Amino acid sequence: MSSVYGENLKLSIFGRSHGPAIGMTLDGIPAGLPVDTETLRIFLDRRAPGNTPWSTARKEADMPEFLDGLLDGHTCGSPIAAIIRNSNVRSSDYDAIKDRPRPGHADYTAHIKHGGFQDASGGGHFSGRLTAALCIAGGLCLQWLDEMGISVRAHILQIGPVKDQGFDPCASSISPVDVSFPTIDPDCGKAMQELIASIKEYGDSIGGTIECIVSGLPAGVGEPIFGGIENRLAQILFGIPGVKGVDFGDDILLGSQYNDAFIYTDGVVKTSTNHCGGILGGISNGMNILFRVRVKPTPSISAEQQTVSLSARETAKITVGGRHDPCIVPRAVPVVEAAAAIAIYDMILGNTQTKRRKG
Amino acid sequence: MSSVYGENLKLSIFGRSHGPAIGMTLDGIPAGLPVDTETLRIFLDRRAPGNTPWSTARKEADMPEFLDGLLDGHTCGSPIAAIIRNSNVRSSDYDAIKDRPRPGHADYTAHIKHGGFQDASGGGHFSGRLTAALCIAGGLCLQWLDEMGISVRAHILQIGPVKDQGFDPCASSISPVDVSFPTIDPDCGKAMQELIASIKEYGDSIGGTIECIVSGLPAGVGEPIFGGIENRLAQILFGIPGVKGVDFGDDILLGSQYNDAFIYTDGVVKTSTNHCGGILGGISNGMNILFRVRVKPTPSISAEQQTVSLSARETAKITVGGRHDPCIVPRAVPVVEAAAAIAIYDMILGNTQTKRRKG
Amino acid sequence: MSSVYGENLKLSIFGRSHGPAIGMTLDGIPAGLPVDTETLRIFLDRRAPGNTPWSTARKEADMPEFLDGLLDGHTCGSPIAAIIRNSNVRSSDYDAIKDRPRPGHADYTAHIKHGGFQDASGGGHFSGRLTAALCIAGGLCLQWLDEMGISVRAHILQIGPVKDQGFDPCASSISPVDVSFPTIDPDCGKAMQELIASIKEYGDSIGGTIECIVSGLPAGVGEPIFGGIENRLAQILFGIPGVKGVDFGDDILLGSQYNDAFIYTDGVVKTSTNHCGGILGGISNGMNILFRVRVKPTPSISAEQQTVSLSARETAKITVGGRHDPCIVPRAVPVVEAAAAIAIYDMILGNTQTKRRKG
Amino acid sequence: MSSVYGENLKLSIFGRSHGPAIGMTLDGIPAGLPVDTETLRIFLDRRAPGNTPWSTARKEADMPEFLDGLLDGHTCGSPIAAIIRNSNVRSSDYDAIKDRPRPGHADYTAHIKHGGFQDASGGGHFSGRLTAALCIAGGLCLQWLDEMGISVRAHILQIGPVKDQGFDPCASSISPVDVSFPTIDPDCGKAMQELIASIKEYGDSIGGTIECIVSGLPAGVGEPIFGGIENRLAQILFGIPGVKGVDFGDDILLGSQYNDAFIYTDGVVKTSTNHCGGILGGISNGMNILFRVRVKPTPSISAEQQTVSLSARETAKITVGGRHDPCIVPRAVPVVEAAAAIAIYDMILGNTQTKRRKG
Repeated sequence: MSSVYGENLKLSIFGRSHGPAIGMTLDGIPAGLPVDTETLRIFLDRRAPGNTPWSTARKEADMPEFLDGLLDGHTCGSPIAAIIRNSNVRSSDYDAIKDRPRPGHADYTAHIKHGGFQDASGGGHFSGRLTAALCIAGGLCLQWLDEMGISVRAHILQIGPVKDQGFDPCASSISPVDVSFPTIDPDCGKAMQELIASIKEYGDSIGGTIECIVSGLPAGVGEPIFGGIENRLAQILFGIPGVKGVDFGDDILLGSQYNDAFIYTDGVVKTSTNHCGGILGGISNGMNILFRVRVKPTPSISAEQQTVSLSARETAKITVGGRHDPCIVPRAVPVVEAAAAIAIYDMILGNTQTKRRKG
Repeated sequence: MSSVYGENLKLSIFGRSHGPAIGMTLDGIPAGLPVDTETLRIFLDRRAPGNTPWSTARKEADMPEFLDGLLDGHTCGSPIAAIIRNSNVRSSDYDAIKDRPRPGHADYTAHIKHGGFQDASGGGHFSGRLTAALCIAGGLCLQWLDEMGISVRAHILQIGPVKDQGFDPCASSISPVDVSFPTIDPDCGKAMQELIASIKEYGDSIGGTIECIVSGLPAGVGEPIFGGIENRLAQILFGIPGVKGVDFGDDILLGSQYNDAFIYTDGVVKTSTNHCGGILGGISNGMNILFRVRVKPTPSISAEQQTVSLSARETAKITVGGRHDPCIVPRAVPVVEAAAAIAIYDMILGNTQTKRRKG
Repeated sequence: MSSVYGENLKLSIFGRSHGPAIGMTLDGIPAGLPVDTETLRIFLDRRAPGNTPWSTARKEADMPEFLDGLLDGHTCGSPIAAIIRNSNVRSSDYDAIKDRPRPGHADYTAHIKHGGFQDASGGGHFSGRLTAALCIAGGLCLQWLDEMGISVRAHILQIGPVKDQGFDPCASSISPVDVSFPTIDPDCGKAMQELIASIKEYGDSIGGTIECIVSGLPAGVGEPIFGGIENRLAQILFGIPGVKGVDFGDDILLGSQYNDAFIYTDGVVKTSTNHCGGILGGISNGMNILFRVRVKPTPSISAEQQTVSLSARETAKITVGGRHDPCIVPRAVPVVEAAAAIAIYDMILGNTQTKRRKG
Repeated sequence: MSSVYGENLKLSIFGRSHGPAIGMTLDGIPAGLPVDTETLRIFLDRRAPGNTPWSTARKEADMPEFLDGLLDGHTCGSPIAAIIRNSNVRSSDYDAIKDRPRPGHADYTAHIKHGGFQDASGGGHFSGRLTAALCIAGGLCLQWLDEMGISVRAHILQIGPVKDQGFDPCASSISPVDVSFPTIDPDCGKAMQELIASIKEYGDSIGGTIECIVSGLPAGVGEPIFGGIENRLAQILFGIPGVKGVDFGDDILLGSQYNDAFIYTDGVVKTSTNHCGGILGGISNGMNILFRVRVKPTPSISAEQQTVSLSARETAKITVGGRHDPCIVPRAVPVVEAAAAIAIYDMILGNTQTKRRKG
């Protein structure tokens, strides 16, 4: 199935960049969970485009309208359904791309798959705009995880040659990252912003890497083989447009250096290092979950590019107009948090960990 | 769910390293597909341990017994079920690890998840032995893909500092890789084998990277958002024990260099380069699918390691005996091919691509 | 999962009787299928309440707003999403029932399941109002089945002692049933309407049986064991509030009378009778699919009933106000058609019937 | 999907009547659940054919071999896998039916679906023999339900004109039914056996109805809309060959008589009657779950029947040889219990009932 995710919850995402609305339904959530819509709004604002050098000028009023699932500030047991109207639609920007698919975008593959019936405007259902719907679901899951003492935090690890410091893999708690530009080292953030500004000036785009940490997750979450934390996180993370790589823990080559020794800390089993990213056999070991997400450069660039005319069956040129970010990595940071929160919450819901203890 | 994979086919894997047998059921396969058991045996031999410097000395008679699904050399429409008996079981090797979990293995997380009821011998259900069951299913899917003109090939891209040349991303057909030691450059293969031999001498282990290419896949396979080729491949690839990273296409930072220009070649839309790994919006674009899989070093090493005694609730030492590979990367190569073939075949089965063409 | 249905398509239904809106998302539908919204509106009107003796006086403007999935009169490959606003909400009618669950309704079980956080107004998510969302999805599937020459027709078979004639199990085509009151025999329909009018006068309610026929379905649709036509139809039909029984074919006791003899008719294999309801081993045999659905009496009646006060923890009385139908069977007829169409279309989408023919 | 069942557990059934073996895998079961293999054997014996007048003379040694999932008398967290070898295979009995499909069997529909590649012997994958695999899974679930105080009991309600008394819908506990011939009234059982013996003498077969009761199930199990107890039970019950109808609670027409009044009994909410079969809105209300299953007559009868020759494309005659039961209803009784236990246990595993209580 395409736009449905989850084993224990079922998240269904819908909408197109320039259709009437985008939205999501989230089924299988227990009743009685508190929902703070103001906290959700603040989270959604982190993904929304602004007037910064690294983001598009499109204005979005991204506060969702909830059509089901909430009552008096709590989940009420029915599926959660929410929509965001698309108020700032300019589909004429995209008239040409139906015949001339934009390089790096899904225009051509959507055309082949959907036989010409797809909505090409702004990428249609493939648009990054859909991540706003993912962030509604993720923003809710983040609140419910927070209630259990589980936090999910991401930051920009690298853009081009500029590299931020990493999260401490063994830290017992992780401070929130500054949301205005999500790096750990502010100087590094400034350097990244300058880099992006110069990329924008040249009409080019740039990719990068996001690092994410989940702290507070108890040991024993995840399933063997195909249901491991890596499998489930990767499945949803690759659902974010532009994500091309997902990598867990440290890239260390020798077993003697990679293996994390078990220790007792305050009567609890921990590991002295955390090279494995908190996951052994697909299951959490009680340490922080750590992974990196590689984001490709935004395919929309200013320069004229070579493509084909599908009607004329010959090569052609295209200049991509419309609004686009020179670097989507900063805006993808909350989306990574959202996706991770959904996957982790789904696994917690389905945790069949026995209450029995042997001997 | 843990050990079940697939949207249109359902693969269920079972067994433990030192249990009576391992096996798999594969449901949803059309009737009438030819199956060549000799080709399957040759494929399974590539994964089986041998007497080479880089593999364990355990002998396995890995030819599966088919209990259902095949008749007169074809699939017959019922679920395919196959088992491999575990003939060479030495569970006493693993008595100690029930109390003292081996660093880098799933012993501890399985203990927490299963409350002490798990089979700790040889890693139980988490053992790499289970990949033989995956290879039965994958070996079948490889045959069915081959019939459609689709090939899946993998090789060792890198071990330590030794790096093989990569597949040609735009090649119209891919030659089989030498199976005795799967590198493209034989000299590079020799250097890797020498490296592994020296790692083995030191009682250490080493990880590496596998590159895989799928050629012949038509454009239009894959689904948007959560059902993309990247999502589906990653979900199954992370089911291979030791896999910690999955990465698609080239790691190029600038959009102006990353975007692949569309061209017409013999009346067919292609791209002039293939940096995106053959996937746009989760859907195949008709070029080769290309990805890399990072494999961590085998956790079993000879040196004494620090762990905990779960009964005494204190730190302890463990020396891991038993059979183990200094480097599982060579044996993981056919497993990556198997996993990729299962995911690709599943997506082809479910392809809802319309037969209608607009206009 | 609760409100999600389908193997190849994924239908997700949401909303509450007195919430902002109800709706559905329908994922996995191929692009390029035509959609006639006027035909859909006419279909939805059949379920909508009217001013007839057998239906509630609540007015609903049931034309859905499509938020995704349609473009220029065709499906466009993205999930189909549609909502219907709840314009005629009178939640004060239901204030009392939060404490005093109505007998025969889901008020009490929802209270236990959702811990008091459920929306009790009008039955919340359990309301028959949700069948309007089911009918959007079903109305679309009916159009796509119609294009393939497959029709789904239902009628009221029995209410109380009044019994309509049945469909001809072997007919090659089935005439549409009069939609104003769906019986085959108009006189029987009149008798039923009189019966319902008298039941209404007494403030009571009455149940009945609906018969449904699917004609034009080719042989070979359906899967063995758990994926049979009976399994899949029953799973969705029991999702219609009030349905308590599903029964296929004829209730004949002796094998010698029950078995349908195979014959050749115009070169095609048929059966001379159709006692099995067109299904053998869960798979269609090319004859009409026939089944009956038993609908319980509407639980809302005028008389004072005994219940409990959950707060006082003692028995109590309740008089159910609000709008309600003395007999929901007539309005359930199109809902049965909708549900059947969804299940049949889902099975056709997933039909892995091989194109190969042996010998 | 065809032979896979379950939302939270995944049951996969495989095998053919005359293939090497039948079996099942059961994934998603928590570790640490006790399993008594002797109790399982006794349960499986109830389904096994015997030398009674109403069953086939085929001898089956139906004790399963467990290949995974059990260790030291408990589940160990890996998938449970079990097989039963087919020791008494006589495929020559069935040579003719590949060309001349038996009326009432799945021979023809399997032929169409599988293009002639199916195993026609003994019905292949469609054989009632497969219910032995269902009974392995069900026998285990029955034990785990029993540990929770939940019992599942079935009996023959009716064969031909002979009708047994029903279960008491409101009883607080249900006595086991005599397993030698499962009726509540022994005299009725004798009459049924005499009826079956006379049917057998005439070479005919007969169907009947089974009643099943689930007691001890707490209120709040089941999900709204498509995930209700009725939906989930029906989906698995129609997987039993020969089942053509599933019906819940009492068939009472008037709302004033059907609605069950709520009462307090020993401080617990109950209903004074149980016409709804213990289910409201798809969710258990704490009363016994009650349903009936209609089983069609065994299609195998002695008389010559009319069929077609698929090769000659003309009508033909067939006399069905081989072993068959004149009435499968008695042997289907434990299968109904098994199927119900699987569905109920699956729903309990996935119960997302909140632990929070409002106010």
